[in-house]
Amino acid sequence: MASAAFDVLAIGNAIVDVIARTDEDFLIRHKMRKGAMQLIDEAQAAKIYDAMGPAVEVSGGSAANTVVGVAGLGLRAAFIGRVKDDELGRVFAHDIRAAGVSFTTPPSSAGPSTGRCYVLVTPDGERTLNTYLGAAQDLHPNDVDADAIAAAQFIYLEGYLWDPKPAKEAFLKAAHIAHAAGRKVALTLSDAFCVDRYRAEFLDLIRRGTVDLVFANEHELHSLYQTADFDTALNALRNDARLAVVTRSEKGCLVVARESTEAVPASPIERLVDATGAGDLFAAGFLVGLSRDADHRSSARLGALVAAEVIQHLGARPETPLKTLAEDNGFEF
Amino acid sequence: MASAAFDVLAIGNAIVDVIARTDEDFLIRHKMRKGAMQLIDEAQAAKIYDAMGPAVEVSGGSAANTVVGVAGLGLRAAFIGRVKDDELGRVFAHDIRAAGVSFTTPPSSAGPSTGRCYVLVTPDGERTLNTYLGAAQDLHPNDVDADAIAAAQFIYLEGYLWDPKPAKEAFLKAAHIAHAAGRKVALTLSDAFCVDRYRAEFLDLIRRGTVDLVFANEHELHSLYQTADFDTALNALRNDARLAVVTRSEKGCLVVARESTEAVPASPIERLVDATGAGDLFAAGFLVGLSRDADHRSSARLGALVAAEVIQHLGARPETPLKTLAEDNGFEF
Repeated sequence: MASAAFDVLAIGNAIVDVIARTDEDFLIRHKMRKGAMQLIDEAQAAKIYDAMGPAVEVSGGSAANTVVGVAGLGLRAAFIGRVKDDELGRVFAHDIRAAGVSFTTPPSSAGPSTGRCYVLVTPDGERTLNTYLGAAQDLHPNDVDADAIAAAQFIYLEGYLWDPKPAKEAFLKAAHIAHAAGRKVALTLSDAFCVDRYRAEFLDLIRRGTVDLVFANEHELHSLYQTADFDTALNALRNDARLAVVTRSEKGCLVVARESTEAVPASPIERLVDATGAGDLFAAGFLVGLSRDADHRSSARLGALVAAEVIQHLGARPETPLKTLAEDNGFEF
Repeated sequence: MASAAFDVLAIGNAIVDVIARTDEDFLIRHKMRKGAMQLIDEAQAAKIYDAMGPAVEVSGGSAANTVVGVAGLGLRAAFIGRVKDDELGRVFAHDIRAAGVSFTTPPSSAGPSTGRCYVLVTPDGERTLNTYLGAAQDLHPNDVDADAIAAAQFIYLEGYLWDPKPAKEAFLKAAHIAHAAGRKVALTLSDAFCVDRYRAEFLDLIRRGTVDLVFANEHELHSLYQTADFDTALNALRNDARLAVVTRSEKGCLVVARESTEAVPASPIERLVDATGAGDLFAAGFLVGLSRDADHRSSARLGALVAAEVIQHLGARPETPLKTLAEDNGFEF
C-alpha cells in the first residue's frame, strides 16, 4: 500500500455558523427541538436570523471541524465540500486553509449562497442547530478526488451528507475508492433526527462494513436502534460495527469493539460555554490517536481532551493550539 | 428643550471585525504597529487576510460598539453609518438592530463592499487593527438625520470619521445641529495615529467647544499634545476641554474637569483575552451614567465595569447582558 498523503480526509457540508446566545423561550416560540439539527429553507433562515440576537460568525460544518482539529494536532488533513464564491464562502475557505487543511473543491459560481447554520446557545451551553444547506447541496460525486481519497489513511464522512442527494453519492463513491485502496472509512451519525431520517441506510452501511468505524452520541445510538434501553442499543452496536465510539457528554465515552468495551472519562472543564463541535473534536482526537497507532484508550483520551477545549468557548473551531494542549497533557506524536 | 428620543446617538464607521489570534512575529513581518489602527486598501486587505490564521467575524466599529453598550445598559441608542447591501453589510445591520440600536442609514447599492477590520490579537490580549473602510467611506452629510440628532441627549462621534472626507462633514453637521438643539457632543480620539493625522483639527474642535466631552487613552493624550510627560499633557487637556476622560487600561481612568480631576480604578478581571472595544465600552458606561445624572465618579465606575466585560472574550461587542451586570454591581437605572 502506498504511503498516505493525508492522515484524515473528510467529506462534509461546508457551513459557516452564525452563533447567538438565547433563552429556552426562544426555542419554544420557534418550535425548535433543543439540542437537535433541523434543515431550513431560505425563507426560514431569514425569519430565524431576523428574530435572533446579535451573532458571531465562525466557520463550522461537522466534518470540517473535525479535520481542523486533526490539522491542529499536527497531522495532515484534507476536506472536500462545496461553498459558493461569495463572502461567506471565502470566509469558510480562508479559515479551513489557514488552519492547515488542504481544501481544493472549487466553489459554485451560481446557485444558492454558501450554507450557514444558525446556532442558538442556551444558558446551559446546549446548542440547537438550524441549517440552511445552500451551496453545500451541490457537492457532487465529481468533487470527490479519487487520488486524494486513495492516498488518505482515514476517510471521515458525516451522516448529514445523506441530506443532499448528490452528496450521498459522493459519500458512497469515496467509501468505495477508499476500501479499494485498503484505507479505513469512519462515519459520524451526526444527529438523532438525521439517524431517524436514514436509519435503514445507516444500519446497512455499518452492517455491510462500508464503514469501519462509527462515532455516535447517546441520542444517536438510541435513535439508531429505536430503544430507550442503553445496554440493548450498545449490544446491538457491538454486534453490528467493527469499531464504534459512543460519546456521552460529561459521562465520557465508550469504545466498543467486538471483544471488549472500554470506558474513558470526559476531560475536566471549568465551564461549559457552547457544546457546538464537541463530537467533531472528539472524533479528531480519536482519529489522530488511531493514525499514530495509539490504543483505543489513549485515542479516546485525546478525543476527550480536544473536545473539552472546544466547549469552553463560542464556536466549533479550536481557539488554542491543540498540539501544545496535547503535549502539555502528556501526548506524544 | 424637547424631551430626547434617544439617550445617545453615535456616528461612526460601520465595520465588521475579522479577528484572529497571532504572535508578535506576525506583526513585525507585516510591519504593523502593535496596538494601533492602520488604514489599508483592498489589495492590502486581501494580503493580510491570506496571511492571517483562522478568524471569527463579529460586528464592530468603534462608535457602533459604544451604542450597542448603551442599548445593552437599557438606554435608547441610535447609530448612523454606512454599509453596503452585501452579506457583511447584512451581518452588521442585523447585529446592531438585534442589540436594540436604531439603525436606519440606507446601505450603498454600488461601490466598495462593507468595511472590515482585520484584528490581530497577540497572546498579551493587545489588539492591532487593519481597517479597510469600504462602504464606510461613503457616509455622507445627507445621511445625518437632523431630527434624530436634535432629539438625542448625547451625540457621540469617533475621531476615525476624520479619515473619509464626507464623513468628517457629516460629523461637523451633526455637531452643529446638536448644539443648536441644546444637546451635548462627545468625541473619542480613537487612536494615537489618528490624532497624529488630525491633531490641529481635533485641538480646534476641543478648544472651540465643538465637543463638550472628550474620551482619550494615554497614547492619544500624549499624541494630542506631543509630549511624553503625562502631567504636562493632562494639564493641557484640563485647560482645553470642558470635560474629558483619560483611560489608562489596568490603571483605571481620570475624569478631568476644569476644577477637579478624579481617579477611578479599573474593574478587576480574571484574564485579559482581547482588548478590542475596551475604550468603546468604557464610553458607553460613562455616557449612560451622565445621561442618568450620575456623578462623574459613578459614571466612570460604570464605564470601567462594562469595559471589563468586553476584554474578557474575543470581539468588541458584549457577550453578557450588561444591564444585569450593572444591577448585580449595585448600579440602578
